[in-house]
Amino acid sequence: VEVSLSDVRERVTPWHLQPPTVEDVEGAVRRISGVLVRTPLLESERVNRRLGCRLFVKAEGLQRTGSFKARGAWNTMSLLFAEGRLDGVICGSSGNHGQAVAWAANRFGVPALVMMPHDAPATKVERTSEWGAEIVRYDRHRENRDIIGHRLAAQRSLTSISAFDDRRIIAGAATLSVEITDQARELGTAVDRLVVNCSGGGMAAGCALMMRRLGTATEVWATEPENYDDLDRSLAAGTLLRNDGVRPSSICDSLMAPSTGPLTFSIMREYLSGAVKVSDQEVLTAMRLAYSEFGLVVEPGGAAGLAAVLSGRIDVKDRNVTVVLSGSNVDASIFRNAIDA
Amino acid sequence: VEVSLSDVRERVTPWHLQPPTVEDVEGAVRRISGVLVRTPLLESERVNRRLGCRLFVKAEGLQRTGSFKARGAWNTMSLLFAEGRLDGVICGSSGNHGQAVAWAANRFGVPALVMMPHDAPATKVERTSEWGAEIVRYDRHRENRDIIGHRLAAQRSLTSISAFDDRRIIAGAATLSVEITDQARELGTAVDRLVVNCSGGGMAAGCALMMRRLGTATEVWATEPENYDDLDRSLAAGTLLRNDGVRPSSICDSLMAPSTGPLTFSIMREYLSGAVKVSDQEVLTAMRLAYSEFGLVVEPGGAAGLAAVLSGRIDVKDRNVTVVLSGSNVDASIFRNAIDA
Repeated sequence: VEVSLSDVRERVTPWHLQPPTVEDVEGAVRRISGVLVRTPLLESERVNRRLGCRLFVKAEGLQRTGSFKARGAWNTMSLLFAEGRLDGVICGSSGNHGQAVAWAANRFGVPALVMMPHDAPATKVERTSEWGAEIVRYDRHRENRDIIGHRLAAQRSLTSISAFDDRRIIAGAATLSVEITDQARELGTAVDRLVVNCSGGGMAAGCALMMRRLGTATEVWATEPENYDDLDRSLAAGTLLRNDGVRPSSICDSLMAPSTGPLTFSIMREYLSGAVKVSDQEVLTAMRLAYSEFGLVVEPGGAAGLAAVLSGRIDVKDRNVTVVLSGSNVDASIFRNAIDA
Repeated sequence: VEVSLSDVRERVTPWHLQPPTVEDVEGAVRRISGVLVRTPLLESERVNRRLGCRLFVKAEGLQRTGSFKARGAWNTMSLLFAEGRLDGVICGSSGNHGQAVAWAANRFGVPALVMMPHDAPATKVERTSEWGAEIVRYDRHRENRDIIGHRLAAQRSLTSISAFDDRRIIAGAATLSVEITDQARELGTAVDRLVVNCSGGGMAAGCALMMRRLGTATEVWATEPENYDDLDRSLAAGTLLRNDGVRPSSICDSLMAPSTGPLTFSIMREYLSGAVKVSDQEVLTAMRLAYSEFGLVVEPGGAAGLAAVLSGRIDVKDRNVTVVLSGSNVDASIFRNAIDA
C-alpha cells in the first residue's frame, strides 16, 4: 500500500487545522445566507477615472457587527451548534472577532468570554460587552494571551474560537471570494486583482485559496501596516516569522496580530500573489476617500487594502480591481482625523 | 357616450404630468437594472433593541452619484433617449438632482446645464461640474429659477428634467418601494411603515403610490425640515401651500424646495399617511447614529427620516419600519458637527 505525504499529513493534522475544501466554503455560504449581509460591491466612476482602472469596493463594514469577522464566527459556531458542541465560547481579539463571537453567542444563547488587549478601541470593547460577553483585559506587551486563554478555557469548559487559524474560520472568510466573484459576474465583469488586509491571515488565505478553486484568474494580494509586516517578511523567508519586540503602534488596531498562523501561512504561501505594507498616513487618506467617494465609514485596519491601491503600492492600471473594506468599527477621534487628512 | 371626470382629466393633462402607472414603475425597474445600484437594506440589532422595533435603513447614499435622484434622472433620460429626444438637458437643483442629471447626461454623451442656488454645498457644485455639466448659479431668495430656466431652455434648445413633478421622475423614485418590498420579503418580513424625506415630493409620492399598487399594507410617511413644512401644512389645508417669505436656513440643503408640485401633491394627498417635521439638531443626531451604528455617511437631508424615527415623531414601537437614507453628499464641516453631536 502506497501512502502519500499528503495522506500522512491529513492523518496527523487535526481536521480543523487542515485547509478548507470547496465543500467547506459552499457550506459556509449556505450557513451565512439569510443571517449575514450580502454586502454590496460598489464603484465610483470618479475614482476609476482618477486611478485609471476599474475599482470595486466590497463594503464589508456594513456586515453584521461591522466587520467580515461575522462570517467566520457564524460559520464556526453554526457547525459547533449543529454538532451539539456549542456550550460556551472564548476568544481573543482586539475587537472585531470578539464582537462577532459575542454576537453569534448571543444569537445561539450561549455565554462568551472575550480577551481584549488593554489598548483596544473603546468602541469595540463597549460593543463586545453589549452583546453580553464577559471581557477580560490583558496587556498586549507583557502578557501572553494564549496562556491566559488556555487557562480560562479549561477552568470554565469553554470552546476556543480562533480568530484565524482554523479551517472553519478561513472557510467563512472565503465566502467573500464567492460573493465578489458572483457580484462581478452580475455586473458583467471579472476581478483581476483582489486586495485584502492581513493580520492573522484568515481572509487573505481563504480568499486566495477559494479564488483558485473557483477557477478564476483573480490574483489575491494582502496588505499590512508598516511595522507589522510579518507576512511580507515570512513570504520572503519562506517560513513563518513574527512581529517581535516592542514596535511603534499603528492606527490599524485590527491588523496587529503577532504573526499569521501555521495554517493561514501555509495556504498564503501557496496561493497569495504577494503582500505590501502601508503607512498610517496612507490609511487615513484611504479612510477619507471611502468617506467622500463611497459614503462609507471604514476603520483604519479596514482601509489598508484601499491605501495600498491609492498609494500605488499595488499596480492597478487598466485592471479590474476589488478591495475589501473589511470593517467600520472606529472611534470618533480617529475618524475625525481621517476626514481632515 | 359617457365621459367620466378621469377621462377628461387624462385628455387635458399632459402625459408626463399624470401619475405613473404600475407599468411605468416596472419599466423604470428594468431600465435602472444593471446601471444603478440595488442598495442594501440594513438593520442593527443594537438600534432595534433601543427603539423597541425592527428598523431597516435603505442605504441609498451608496447609489450612483450618492443619492436616490439617480433613479428618476436615469429613468427619464433613458425614456427620452429611446424616443430619440435626448439632445441636451437642463435642470435646477441644490445638488443631488443636478449631479444625477449631469451623470446621466455624461453617460448618454449629451450636454447638461444645471442651475444651482448660491448657497448650494461646495461638494455638490464641484461634483456636478466634474460630470461635465455647465453650472449657472442663482440667488435662492431674489431670483426665480423657473424663469431663468425657461429662458435658457428656449435659447439653447434644452429639454428640462424636472426634479420631482414628472411622471417619469416619480416612477424612478418609486423603484425604491419595489426594491424595499422585495428585500424585506427576502428577509422573511414586511414593512409596516416606510419613512422618506420630502422636498418636492417625488420620492414620497412615488413610494406611497407604488406601495398601494403593490397591495402592501405599508404606510408611507414623509419628513420635512421644521421651517420647510409646506407638505404638512398643505395636507392639513387640503391645498398646495408654499414656504413663502425669507425663512431661517436649514442644514437640510436638499429639502428646501419652495413647495411640492401639483402632481406629487395630488398623489401624496391620496396615498400618504402623513408628514412630520424635524429640527436641525435631530438631523445631526440621526447622522451620527447612521455613522456609528450603520457605518454610513448620510447628508442632512438624507437623515431627516431617521431623525423623525429617533425623535419619536413617528411611532415605531413593535413595528417593522424602513427609513430611506436618501443621500450621502455632505461637506466635511457639517459631517464633523454630526460626529460631535
